[in-house]
Amino acid sequence: MKIKIVTSKKIKNRFTKDAIKEYAKRLTRYCKIQLNVTNKIEKEINRDSYLIKINNSGNMLTSEELADKISSLGISGNSHITFLFDDEHYVGNADFDLKISNMDIDNELLLIVLYEQIYRAYRIINNEP
Amino acid sequence: MKIKIVTSKKIKNRFTKDAIKEYAKRLTRYCKIQLNVTNKIEKEINRDSYLIKINNSGNMLTSEELADKISSLGISGNSHITFLFDDEHYVGNADFDLKISNMDIDNELLLIVLYEQIYRAYRIINNEP
Repeated sequence: MKIKIVTSKKIKNRFTKDAIKEYAKRLTRYCKIQLNVTNKIEKEINRDSYLIKINNSGNMLTSEELADKISSLGISGNSHITFLFDDEHYVGNADFDLKISNMDIDNELLLIVLYEQIYRAYRIINNEP
Repeated sequence: MKIKIVTSKKIKNRFTKDAIKEYAKRLTRYCKIQLNVTNKIEKEINRDSYLIKINNSGNMLTSEELADKISSLGISGNSHITFLFDDEHYVGNADFDLKISNMDIDNELLLIVLYEQIYRAYRIINNEP
């Protein structure tokens, strides 16, 4: 599975970079993951990739439900997932709109949470504690 | 307002320490905040402090609602708030059970999110963007 996370917002905090690096390292066992910071969001959206938009008006999932989603996308032949962190720049529809919390959480923290949830999803899929 | 965050779980990741330090610094303008990592949770729970337990079976709030809660506690004379991150070690009731997400999020990340939400609450209370 290839996972791409796309955002137009540059990462400012050192701790965000460190946290992402840590989770990306842990994820190498399970998938290929990359983070693209770009203003050209449209270019990053491919038709053949399942698009999940992080969106405060979206639907909440439990960690198990996200794991199920990632797992069943793999089974049904969707080997690419794109997570989009950008409400303003991309107006197209997503395959799924994901809301992480009722709270407005800082974008960089949400990015770390997303990495952690992808890591957690693979642990769940592989029955690892 | 004095805010105390209590947990029995030692902080392992460097990025968590850095993130907490950053938010604690930003919060000095608004409140006194301290983090107590201890196994003696009961000792940290004072009757005169409003107790909010971070709890997956709790209630979700928006950032604005958390700001309202902190603001109205200040007005009603509750000058202490304790946030408790510890389901296993403390079985007593809290004044409020707060659920941050439907997802199971790593404890250290939740701690960073909580700091950010307290900071965000004070920005909202003070009408700062």
